[in-house]
Amino acid sequence: MSSPITPKITSLVDLPSSEAKWVKLQKATYIDASGKERVWEIASRKTTGKSGVDAVAMGNIIYHPSKPPSTVLVIQFRPPVNAFTIEWPAGLIDAHESAEEAAVRELYEETGYRGTVISTSPAVSADPGMTSANMKLCMVEVHLNEGEPEPEQHLEDGEEIQRVNVPLSELYERLEEFAKEGYVVAAKLYHWAAGVRYAIDHPELFKKA
Amino acid sequence: MSSPITPKITSLVDLPSSEAKWVKLQKATYIDASGKERVWEIASRKTTGKSGVDAVAMGNIIYHPSKPPSTVLVIQFRPPVNAFTIEWPAGLIDAHESAEEAAVRELYEETGYRGTVISTSPAVSADPGMTSANMKLCMVEVHLNEGEPEPEQHLEDGEEIQRVNVPLSELYERLEEFAKEGYVVAAKLYHWAAGVRYAIDHPELFKKA
Repeated sequence: MSSPITPKITSLVDLPSSEAKWVKLQKATYIDASGKERVWEIASRKTTGKSGVDAVAMGNIIYHPSKPPSTVLVIQFRPPVNAFTIEWPAGLIDAHESAEEAAVRELYEETGYRGTVISTSPAVSADPGMTSANMKLCMVEVHLNEGEPEPEQHLEDGEEIQRVNVPLSELYERLEEFAKEGYVVAAKLYHWAAGVRYAIDHPELFKKA
Repeated sequence: MSSPITPKITSLVDLPSSEAKWVKLQKATYIDASGKERVWEIASRKTTGKSGVDAVAMGNIIYHPSKPPSTVLVIQFRPPVNAFTIEWPAGLIDAHESAEEAAVRELYEETGYRGTVISTSPAVSADPGMTSANMKLCMVEVHLNEGEPEPEQHLEDGEEIQRVNVPLSELYERLEEFAKEGYVVAAKLYHWAAGVRYAIDHPELFKKA
């Protein structure tokens, strides 16, 4: 990392939901399929907007006239995992903003790239056994011209995000390497890259009848 | 669903970390890359075992002599999202159990299939902006014989899990359909299927130079 200082956690204390701004714990009582009453513990975001969707991630494809097609990943210190993570650019969807608007805005802020959304997933669940948090995956295309300078990021105060461009043909191997080097790779990005790799290695499995 | 009763949440109340068995909220104080002290709110599992990995998911490939290659998905009511979810079989890793052992055990319990782990991912992070929860993806092969009866599940008391076999060639479209029908699709499974689909639709992007 080029950061002059290595971020680190200096204290970790219990947090009552009432004092939390972003997250909360809840206990759900529910009737299961056999009619029995059960309980389940849930971690939720307090910030879920009107759309009911928390976040958007930008599965991005960077096209360049003379460089191999690539994707831009972001590297940042993430206190929840106490490590630098490897993720696709992503962010929370603001109130009154669509997933697609948030995708274009966040990609620009985090990477400087201006992209076009070509598809949007349904709202999918990050970890449905534990949290209500959900997100949409927007696939975004970025078309660069020859000789165009690397764009500037437009980060908010306190955001320290590094970018790294990875050729798509090497994505899976690079994620494996990042993990060996001590970075924490985001599960969703890893699964996309693993799906790509599986389809390339086993094309016969996916042939339509 | 074939369940006689539709599960539903009857109450949702704030839960102090001290009373929770499975999850907790914490406040991390940390030094960022510019040397400034900041705070971050984190939801964690209380159950993370010695291995430091919470869960394993089984990306499974079912081979059959006369049927198209498929994958088995599980459908269950998930209180955190108040809906039936579509996921790959998955479970928490028990203490003193490897990810691979948990994968074989959980696949058998949830689906009845006996599988062989062919690869294991690094520990990847479910939602690193919010939680420390992590998991490994085990790819598992299941080889069935002609005429073999559908195996029985071996569910724990209170587990109500339905299985559905989906041909791999239709996986992405079926996930989109499930979402339209009101099921909540797990983000990791969706990303894998989306990666497969992207590689099939855009093979030129992934060619090695």
